[in-house]
Amino acid sequence: MYIGVDLGGTNIAVGLVDEAGKIIKSASTPTNAPRSAEEIAKDIAGLCKSISEEAEAENLGKIEGIGVGVPGPVDEKLASVYVCVNLGWDEVNLKAILEEMTGYPVFIDNDANLAALAELEVGAFKGAQNAILFTLGTGVGGGVVTDGHIYRGSHGLGTELGHLYMGENFYDCNCGKNGCLETFASATAIIKHAEKLIIDKVYPESELNRLYNQHGLNAKAIFDCAKDGDALAVIAVERYTKYLAAGIGNMINLLDPDVIALGGGVAYAGEYLMNKINEKLPYFTLMKDKVSTELKFAATGNDAGVIGAGMLAKTEL
Amino acid sequence: MYIGVDLGGTNIAVGLVDEAGKIIKSASTPTNAPRSAEEIAKDIAGLCKSISEEAEAENLGKIEGIGVGVPGPVDEKLASVYVCVNLGWDEVNLKAILEEMTGYPVFIDNDANLAALAELEVGAFKGAQNAILFTLGTGVGGGVVTDGHIYRGSHGLGTELGHLYMGENFYDCNCGKNGCLETFASATAIIKHAEKLIIDKVYPESELNRLYNQHGLNAKAIFDCAKDGDALAVIAVERYTKYLAAGIGNMINLLDPDVIALGGGVAYAGEYLMNKINEKLPYFTLMKDKVSTELKFAATGNDAGVIGAGMLAKTEL
Repeated sequence: MYIGVDLGGTNIAVGLVDEAGKIIKSASTPTNAPRSAEEIAKDIAGLCKSISEEAEAENLGKIEGIGVGVPGPVDEKLASVYVCVNLGWDEVNLKAILEEMTGYPVFIDNDANLAALAELEVGAFKGAQNAILFTLGTGVGGGVVTDGHIYRGSHGLGTELGHLYMGENFYDCNCGKNGCLETFASATAIIKHAEKLIIDKVYPESELNRLYNQHGLNAKAIFDCAKDGDALAVIAVERYTKYLAAGIGNMINLLDPDVIALGGGVAYAGEYLMNKINEKLPYFTLMKDKVSTELKFAATGNDAGVIGAGMLAKTEL
Repeated sequence: MYIGVDLGGTNIAVGLVDEAGKIIKSASTPTNAPRSAEEIAKDIAGLCKSISEEAEAENLGKIEGIGVGVPGPVDEKLASVYVCVNLGWDEVNLKAILEEMTGYPVFIDNDANLAALAELEVGAFKGAQNAILFTLGTGVGGGVVTDGHIYRGSHGLGTELGHLYMGENFYDCNCGKNGCLETFASATAIIKHAEKLIIDKVYPESELNRLYNQHGLNAKAIFDCAKDGDALAVIAVERYTKYLAAGIGNMINLLDPDVIALGGGVAYAGEYLMNKINEKLPYFTLMKDKVSTELKFAATGNDAGVIGAGMLAKTEL
């Protein structure tokens, strides 16, 4: 048995995860960020203690260790968080703090890596040697599997799929650069693009324009309008899927994986999104007739963080 | 002892390579492409026979096997060439043909992978766990080292660094796509861009303009003129190094390697090129103050192909 902790900017989710990657029990508490690492770690340790006591009382098996996913880069020793803007942290050895507080072996990793690990252990990457996860949410994140394990780079700073340069864009990324994939292929990106089209008075009679004036836009509304043929929304979705296909094509040309999976909120656009990408993808791949990378949706959904964190402890112990 | 074969579009170079990756003897013959795989394989086998007979006569040690680099993608079994435009080949099991002709175990790989393997065994990547080679020539090629070995992808089609999408360009790539890194960062790319500037009458009094009218352009002339401050050449070099820095930054953000090396003809622009890239690189890397990827020049030069091919046989046997 393992404890998986998904430390997010909003909530701390903790789960008891078995060898097969199944969540047996779970608990959560608000993060109340920004707070110091010690304060947040105290809450994490408290949740871990309740879960381990319950597990013991119900004879569910010995807890071997704790895995923790954080929304920022972690060093290659799976110990120190380099920086975490959402939590207000800089250089925090969360492994040391939590091992001291809990008495269990603790391993820390970036949440996107753990989402990929969850797919590898129980989801879309089962049996794959090489695989790539794109998480399409507020930003674009990702995890990479090479040779059957999570690839983290030489200093734990790798697989920042959202910050690949893809050409000039009309607004800059939060990271300070212009041209990041995240500014073309995140939920934020499609909203900003649709808003720009509305401000530029492209199709002022469109349904999307009406929704914008009524209560603002979100990615789901844009995809829903596009599915209904709304001309403005279709422009936004066409550009979105062009760049996402280019980003996926880059990963095929570069890493030639068995499988690429799409997760995150935008992935709920479902088959409509997948069809648009599949239309555009051959243009961006070099060996159009030889490549057999499978493109599918991620399978672990909202549980990815906790499952992946549990599986991190399993993998590292 | 191994035999390394560098099968290029122009020449077939063959070398006797020792355990340490040193070329002990070498020989070559023109490729005379396009020709059938059988005809070219006969020439390769002939050169291998002469070299092995010399090695035997001089008591240089037993030849264990043959490695062959080809200018095209090779399947993950290191046996079949998928396609090779320069040679006019499609789906050729060169391993089977050469094993039949020579009696030795034979392994085939893409020449860019073997250039990276040469760097890993005897050059800029010695001791590295994760490393990336950019070869900056007529096109842009590359090889990737992960976890201390050459990364080839699930079907042998990976690490096509030259075909990463980098935004719109004013001309299309040979692969049919617009926006490939190769169309921004190859020798061909900087020549085409400088020619465009000349045709657009930007700085018509420039030295580069004079050279163009006299005998046409090459990448070396453009870099030489830029070093001398020629305004037209400086524009071309600035754009070239912006996109090359973006491409290198993408690989740092994605694979966070220990080292990135630059090889190929354009790399001879030397420290001037390196300084321009180092100026621009921090803009494109996400973790500017944390990343410690080393950027350097490739070390094996023109021998990379033969050394890498010899080391392929060593690695695979």
